[in-house]
Amino acid sequence: MKSVTEEAANQPSHQLQAEAGKTNLILKTPKGTRDFSPKQMAIREEIFGTIISCFKRHGAVTIDTPVFELRDLLLDGHWEESKLVYDLKDQGGEMLSLRYDLTVPFARYLAMNKITNFKRYHIAKVYRRDNPSISKGRYREFYQCDFDIAGQYDPMIPDAECLKIMHEILSALQCGEFLIKINDRRILKGIFDTCGVSDARFEAACSSLDKLGKMSWEEVKTEMVHERGILPEAAEIIGHYVQLSGGERLIHQLCQDPKLSKSQQAVEGLEEMKLLFEYLTLFGVRDQVSLDLSLARGLDYYSGVIYEAVLLRQPNGHCKEHPPVDSVAGGGRYDGLVATFDPKGQKVPCVGVSIGVERLFSVIEQKLEMSKEKIRMKETQVLVATAQRNFLTERMKLINALWGAGIKAEMSYKKNPKLLNQLQYCEETGIPLVVIIGQQEMNDGVVKLRDVATRKEIDIPKENFIEEIKKRLEK
Amino acid sequence: MKSVTEEAANQPSHQLQAEAGKTNLILKTPKGTRDFSPKQMAIREEIFGTIISCFKRHGAVTIDTPVFELRDLLLDGHWEESKLVYDLKDQGGEMLSLRYDLTVPFARYLAMNKITNFKRYHIAKVYRRDNPSISKGRYREFYQCDFDIAGQYDPMIPDAECLKIMHEILSALQCGEFLIKINDRRILKGIFDTCGVSDARFEAACSSLDKLGKMSWEEVKTEMVHERGILPEAAEIIGHYVQLSGGERLIHQLCQDPKLSKSQQAVEGLEEMKLLFEYLTLFGVRDQVSLDLSLARGLDYYSGVIYEAVLLRQPNGHCKEHPPVDSVAGGGRYDGLVATFDPKGQKVPCVGVSIGVERLFSVIEQKLEMSKEKIRMKETQVLVATAQRNFLTERMKLINALWGAGIKAEMSYKKNPKLLNQLQYCEETGIPLVVIIGQQEMNDGVVKLRDVATRKEIDIPKENFIEEIKKRLEK
Repeated sequence: MKSVTEEAANQPSHQLQAEAGKTNLILKTPKGTRDFSPKQMAIREEIFGTIISCFKRHGAVTIDTPVFELRDLLLDGHWEESKLVYDLKDQGGEMLSLRYDLTVPFARYLAMNKITNFKRYHIAKVYRRDNPSISKGRYREFYQCDFDIAGQYDPMIPDAECLKIMHEILSALQCGEFLIKINDRRILKGIFDTCGVSDARFEAACSSLDKLGKMSWEEVKTEMVHERGILPEAAEIIGHYVQLSGGERLIHQLCQDPKLSKSQQAVEGLEEMKLLFEYLTLFGVRDQVSLDLSLARGLDYYSGVIYEAVLLRQPNGHCKEHPPVDSVAGGGRYDGLVATFDPKGQKVPCVGVSIGVERLFSVIEQKLEMSKEKIRMKETQVLVATAQRNFLTERMKLINALWGAGIKAEMSYKKNPKLLNQLQYCEETGIPLVVIIGQQEMNDGVVKLRDVATRKEIDIPKENFIEEIKKRLEK
Repeated sequence: MKSVTEEAANQPSHQLQAEAGKTNLILKTPKGTRDFSPKQMAIREEIFGTIISCFKRHGAVTIDTPVFELRDLLLDGHWEESKLVYDLKDQGGEMLSLRYDLTVPFARYLAMNKITNFKRYHIAKVYRRDNPSISKGRYREFYQCDFDIAGQYDPMIPDAECLKIMHEILSALQCGEFLIKINDRRILKGIFDTCGVSDARFEAACSSLDKLGKMSWEEVKTEMVHERGILPEAAEIIGHYVQLSGGERLIHQLCQDPKLSKSQQAVEGLEEMKLLFEYLTLFGVRDQVSLDLSLARGLDYYSGVIYEAVLLRQPNGHCKEHPPVDSVAGGGRYDGLVATFDPKGQKVPCVGVSIGVERLFSVIEQKLEMSKEKIRMKETQVLVATAQRNFLTERMKLINALWGAGIKAEMSYKKNPKLLNQLQYCEETGIPLVVIIGQQEMNDGVVKLRDVATRKEIDIPKENFIEEIKKRLEK
């Protein structure tokens, strides 16, 4: 176990030795977590806004669930990597853990409320005690943006919509070119069956396969043979298949494959894959999609089609030297998960997509940084200012009228602020209009209206200054 | 320690005995927490929208902080009731706790980033292992909506804005009449000083006083005398003061009070209270505000003005029999908190307001329930439907065009859905328009457009069906 001080030593940028009172407080956020500044929040809110409007365009409602769940419900066979789950301390009462995704709570919600069809999105934080990597945008606390369709429907129709949504969001966020890799757990199962890998070893083998991209095939093969109990000859054949990728022609070729075509599961998966490609063509997203037999997805609960989107180029135009490994969205079909929560084991077929917003955020943040584009953090429209002493009461009356009219307005909290400081504040924060009040204006029954960009000032009668300002803001 | 089963027995409504596999899973959310359904989320999002637009109108930016903090940072003298804090299990590494409010993380953020003036809002979940009471809207996981102003300014100007914000939000949410009780820790300190209560006993006495409303004065007095070490004579005098409430006249009267006027702190508090009432009059919120000497607020970090809003009537018009106890918003000034985090102890004066959105939500939810008003959970504008078999491809092409034009559209995920079911879905979910495609329409190069409310149907040419639909939706 590392001490708090050792841990902190890994995060030099967030660190500050505080000696408040007698204790040595280390002023930092917990390992693998971070604060978001107003500027970052402005960027994030725009990203979330884009994602939510896409989810709504596809008719989804939203739900919320608690950040922690009963530990037994969360872990009971749903996730292999339970060592990555944050547990709460036993303080008497129930044993709780922080959710590690939004899919398991969704399945619990469906089973608990006996819901058999549902289209919902859920945007919330999840928690994994993973090894954080700031450069890769991998944190211990991070947002997921999930869209799922539950219900018994005809093959690949909801699945195609999930892929369409993934495509719409990645296009709208303008993070550069992307590729959506697709596979089907049933095709993988067929391949492994063909090679004589037992059912018991299938999940473990998938979780090795999932590392392809981060590791070379040789390394993955070694892990399969030495840690997952796969015979070297079998690994050889698996290796042949999982290096294949393509489109309709590959599907056709696999359907003809003498070994694979004997696996009923593989045939089912391939037939539906053919259908899926047709639907994706109708939805106009076919070009960014590729069947990739190496795609495995780490989670146990997937039962059919699976997919993952990767960025091909950074938005600044530089093609990366190494093959793309940055997964920015993923998902798939999980027809058995809800049944594990249901007393009677009733099945509710589900398919969903999860947008990895943290990785996208860091790409967009970098892009904005390079473009030097100025980001407004606040929406204030008017500053109520004065150049003279003793105009606090008047400023308060004016700002109160502005707020009453729904206009976003601020004023200095000092009794006698300097005009220069007030105008500088407008420049810095992007406030477009200033209302200035002073003795001359009081005498004339007017307020001075200053346009921050042009520096032009005009007097307007106090009686209708709200209407005047509204007119200008509408432009 | 209660077993999981015992705990669950207290929540019969959320409970379902599941026997998935071999284990007896109890299908519920953790004690004191809940899920929110799409209907509840629709109501909540409107409430959050109202609150956020008020915060933005007053020029606030937003930040985010992690849901957990280093335990030492969170607890180091900041909260008396540390037994109510959720701790995370020691899994190696740092000792962490879930935040119990947004104020302490805000102060930590300011100190860590050396920020000395800042106006931010933060809407997020906080956690308290309190005794949950569903009927009172008291949960263990709940949202807080905080607005705070940090910086060295002239007295009571930011404080008045916080109260103005509280007033604007409670008015906008239409939860019925409300009263904002105001007091000042310095006035309370003066009263306790006058009665010879030592500094050491002041915080504890405040925390007893905070129970007034939930307990009678006699009970509070007993607690003060027997548990907080206050002399009976002192308690008697305290009792005289804390039962006073009023406005400018009471302030004037207290300024003349022979005992209180000897306390420098009380005089300072009273002078600024006078100023605050002037500002609140200018902001047009004076009528809903009352100086109430019994108001203490439970948290240690308050150093000046404190306030709390209570609902006077339920929005259905029934005046409640008992005096109001439902606090729906609160806050105050805490000038010393940031310094406790700062290595050099630098002071950053702060004042803020926190909206208790859970209580407001349950009032609004009840009000809507009674009004039988229908709440739309989704925003879908068009359903793409068919009355005939084998029109999936056509439906997919049409819906793809609608999505491409930014129109919110859905279609059935069945290959050959029944028209009646499709129309019923529109009625249930409030979708106003249906695009219907069939053989006749195909032959004629049109689509049928049905208005769900009027049941009128017209054919429109397929070339410009998007424009036609847009025109209708704009109405």
